[in-house]
Order: sequence, then C-alpha cells, then structure tokens
Amino acid sequence: MSLMSSPTDVLLREVGLRDGLQMVTHFVPTEVKIAWLRAEHAAGVREMEVTSLVPAKLLPQFADAQAVIEAAKALPGLITVALVPNLKGAQLALELGVDKLDFVMSVSHTHNLKNVRRTREESLADLVRIVQARDAAGLSGKVLISAGLSSALGCSYEGDISLDEVRRCVADLVAAGAQEILIADTVGYSNPCKIEAVFRVVIEEAGVLPVGAHLHDTRGLGIANAKAAWDCGVRLFDASLGGLGGCPYAPGASGNVVMEDLCFLFEAMGHRTGIDLAALLKVRHQVEEALGSVPMFGGLARSGLPVGYSKPSFIVTNSANYRTGEST
Amino acid sequence: MSLMSSPTDVLLREVGLRDGLQMVTHFVPTEVKIAWLRAEHAAGVREMEVTSLVPAKLLPQFADAQAVIEAAKALPGLITVALVPNLKGAQLALELGVDKLDFVMSVSHTHNLKNVRRTREESLADLVRIVQARDAAGLSGKVLISAGLSSALGCSYEGDISLDEVRRCVADLVAAGAQEILIADTVGYSNPCKIEAVFRVVIEEAGVLPVGAHLHDTRGLGIANAKAAWDCGVRLFDASLGGLGGCPYAPGASGNVVMEDLCFLFEAMGHRTGIDLAALLKVRHQVEEALGSVPMFGGLARSGLPVGYSKPSFIVTNSANYRTGEST
Repeated sequence: MSLMSSPTDVLLREVGLRDGLQMVTHFVPTEVKIAWLRAEHAAGVREMEVTSLVPAKLLPQFADAQAVIEAAKALPGLITVALVPNLKGAQLALELGVDKLDFVMSVSHTHNLKNVRRTREESLADLVRIVQARDAAGLSGKVLISAGLSSALGCSYEGDISLDEVRRCVADLVAAGAQEILIADTVGYSNPCKIEAVFRVVIEEAGVLPVGAHLHDTRGLGIANAKAAWDCGVRLFDASLGGLGGCPYAPGASGNVVMEDLCFLFEAMGHRTGIDLAALLKVRHQVEEALGSVPMFGGLARSGLPVGYSKPSFIVTNSANYRTGEST
Repeated sequence: MSLMSSPTDVLLREVGLRDGLQMVTHFVPTEVKIAWLRAEHAAGVREMEVTSLVPAKLLPQFADAQAVIEAAKALPGLITVALVPNLKGAQLALELGVDKLDFVMSVSHTHNLKNVRRTREESLADLVRIVQARDAAGLSGKVLISAGLSSALGCSYEGDISLDEVRRCVADLVAAGAQEILIADTVGYSNPCKIEAVFRVVIEEAGVLPVGAHLHDTRGLGIANAKAAWDCGVRLFDASLGGLGGCPYAPGASGNVVMEDLCFLFEAMGHRTGIDLAALLKVRHQVEEALGSVPMFGGLARSGLPVGYSKPSFIVTNSANYRTGEST
C-alpha cells in the first residue's frame, strides 16, 4: 500500500471526522458522519481519518467508532484511518479492521502528558507493542502504522521546540516501527521558513518513509505553510472541510488547514489531487448545514471557483508555462 | 523617497481605508477613519492609501477625502497615498498634497472599461498627462506616481490573462512615467505558481522600478501568494486590516490579504516590517468595533499571538537557523 502508487500528485487526507469532531461539544449523529464520509469519498477523497479510538467517557464524540469504521470500509479504494493514542486503542483498531493506525506522540513533554497521559518514553514503548500486536495478528502487510508527531513546530505549553528534539523523536518513532511520519503544527505556530527547517530535518531522518504534514490554520498561515511543505517534497497533507478542528488538550489550538482551499491550491498549481473540487465544495456546504452552529472557515466556500475554472484551461498556456514543482 | 531606504525589510501598506471602505455601503464617519489611520500609524505602519479621488456621486464613501488626507499628512513619516482613476482625480491629489498617487489600469479591457470607464489606451494617455501635470507643478521630486495594474492574475470577465498582455501593460506604464508598479490579483484568481510566473515577467519589464503586490484573499491563497511574491523579490505589499476590501466593478471580488496575518507571516519568518504586531491587533479590533456589522476575517485576530511570542525568541536558535530570504 504505497502512498505514491495512486495516479495523483498529492494525497489530501480528510481528518475532520476525527480532528474536527473532537472539538464539537455535541454528539454528531452517526448517520451525519456516514453521509459525510460517503459524499467526500464520492468527490474523490481517498484517505480519511474517520474516528478516534479513545474511551467514550473521555471523548463521547467517538462512541460510534465501530459503525463509522464499518461504513468507511465499505467504500471502494478508501484508506480508512483511526487515531490510536495507546495500545488499547490500537488493539481495537486492529479488531475493527482499519487500513491505517494513526499513533500520536508529542515532541513537547507537557503536551504528551496532557494529550495521551504518558511520558514520551511510555508512548514509544506503546508504539513498539502496537507494532508487535499488529504483526502477531498477521496484519503486517495489511495495516500501516503511521506516527503523528504533535507540537513539532511549537507548543502552547513549552513554546519553541528545538530541531534537535524533533529529530530525536523522529528517529525514535522510526526505530519503534512507524511506517509514516506526520508532522503536526498542533497549535498553528509555524511559518514557511520554520516548515522548511523542520521538514528538512524530518525528511532526512525519516529516510525512505513517507512524511506528511498535519497543519493548523490558527494564524492564517496554514496554506502558505502547506505550500512550503510541498516545496520540501511533502506529498501527503491532512486537512478538514471548512477548517474544523483543534486539540482539546492544547490551549489555543484551532482549526485544521481548510480542505477545499488546500485542494484549490494544488489543483490551481496544476497538481492532481484526484478530487473533484466542485463536488468537494458541495460536500462542504452539506456538512456545514448538517453541523448547524459549528463555525466553518475558508475562502473558496465563500467565493466559489473562479469563473470558467477547469483544470486545463485555468493554466495559462499562451506564454511561458509556469507549472513548477512537478511531483517527485 | 526610496522604498528601500527604510530600516525595514518589507513595507506593508494599509489600503483598507480605500479598498476596504469602497465596499462598505454606508458612509463611515470621518472621525472613525482618522482614528483608524492615527492608530495604525502609531503601530508602525508607514504607508497608507487613505482615500480614492473619485466623484462623490460615484463613491460617496470618499466624500471626505480632503479631511482624511489632511489628517494623514499630519502624521510624521507616513507616506500618504490616494487612488486616482484619471487626470481630474490626480489634479485634486496634487492640490491636496499627497505623497503618492495610485493610478489604476486593468490588463483586462473589460474590467478597465467597467472600473474607470476608459479604454486602456485612454488610461495610458491619462497617465502621461498626470505625469506632466505633476512635473508642471514642480512636484517631480516630491510626489511619486505609482501604477496599479488590475486583473493581472485573472479577471472575472475575461478569465485567464496572458503573460504577454501583462508584459505589454507594464512596458506601457513604465513608458508613460510610472515610478512603481503594483500588480493586483483583483479577484483572487492567483496561486503561488502563477505569482511566480507573472512577477518574474513584471520585475524583468519594470527594470529598476519597485514592484509591489496587491493581493486579494478571495479563495484562501492570499498569504501563500504573498510568500511566493516575496520569494520573487517583492518587498512592497498592500493589505487591509481584517481583510476588508473588494472591487465594486469586478464581480466576485472580495477582501484584501489580511494585514495582521501578513505582518505575522513576515515577522515570524524573521523579516522586519517595522510594525508592532500586538499594537496592530488592537487597532484591528478597534476598527472592527467601529465599523459595526462589516465582516472582518483573519486567523491572528481570532487566535492571538503565540504564547511567549516576541521577535527574537520566536526564532529557534538552538539548532540550524532557518531564516531564509534575507532582504535584498
């Protein structure tokens, strides 16, 4: 299951059903979630983090994890992902048959303690056990273990995060058996220069493993940061419709980078996302309506696609071709 | 009056008092405008487009142009700019003693006709007469004539705009006596790759003249486009507090790139704007309150500065230095 085997240049992964809904205080009905993931799959999205496998008493938003995962698994070609904060969550994920486990650890010691109630060392030991459990179940070729590295670009408890600490965490995650590294700007502290510095170190340390970007648009720089990550060679991006999201255990965290704006960024630059942008916009408006009072963000949903927009004609072709950054 | 003589790395020009207020349907009281420009000047902003010299029957929002210009001129070190669509507006601007005239022409023939009721040829002839009038008044060393080139990155009437047409317009504006070129993404159709293509052509054609970027954040790419323009060498950017703005004669136009987010972009990357970001945020909230129901946008105003934010400490220094793109 290589990320690069798809016919797209960049993979945009919807995380609103997990990262978005964990910030919504009321329980979103299961049928709303399932309608959302079906509609977004129909628009061309091929990877979604659909739930979080945490105790329902902690995050009751995800009490219906099993039903949501089953609905996602029924969709052809969709990579179904669940967040797992620990071994117990991972065991449940393996039983439910997800395609990918998103394990999370934070570079910030404080945030890791608040977020998953473990030291970094305990998290790493958990990851080793998760990999063992996956392999013991005979699923090593079937279930991919991704490691999200939170607060890698700054922390609202600890402030700046050193590049050396980021490098150490990536090395530890790789050594523990992670097969993909997702670098998260949990509280939106980054800027394009910082992205460049951090991702260069991470990509170097991750070696052959894919490196993705989980960016938040807390201070308006989300899309610019994504462009900077693309320039570093990143081809996997998390995003959520309307910029839903945040982190309940990170003060000041707010929404993810807006899925439809991120999709517009790449498509307009001539890179294939595999997503029908007009259809995606319709899903966004449907989800906004279904969620009621939950605020959503983003420019494209407000303004619509440019007049006459279509992928080929939108690229100026009567003079110099300005496509750059062809996929690697 | 060189743009590069200031102690900053990048000049952020507030255009909300012109581009923003032209989209506000009610008349904003003169004292509100003056309080705004004084507060933003106090926060460190050193260039502002404060009004538009158009007949009050067309845009009654600017009926108080004289009073606003006088208030701006009283502020030390502030470059006071007024938009002039034609010779008559320019003559008034010269009488009122502005520091810089913003003449506007559109690459799109249709938009130029709608926006300033002239063909491009008539606009260029006007620009020649404006330069002559400025020189005849003995103001050639005192009043700078800037030329804004609208719809240079796409037009909601004409769609794609060819690079050859952009190049021709820049050459025409330079030949007519423009001393600065401001490339405008009037309806927010651009993306970072298009920015790169267009600004390379414009910078080449403009020769020694400064080239600025007037970007709109219509589809969420405004800040990413600004970063791309910076990478091309652009050091002058228009923006408006809370992303106010649009164009009454360009369907689908919406707000400018958000001033406070743009300022955060550059400051966080280690470039000096000369602006006190915390003070700027206060002005933004004051203006939002004063304007009442007018919607404002932006991430920084919603989330605030990062915890412990200050220019030097925000830059990670305990490992590789990730500052790039030092000013030229």
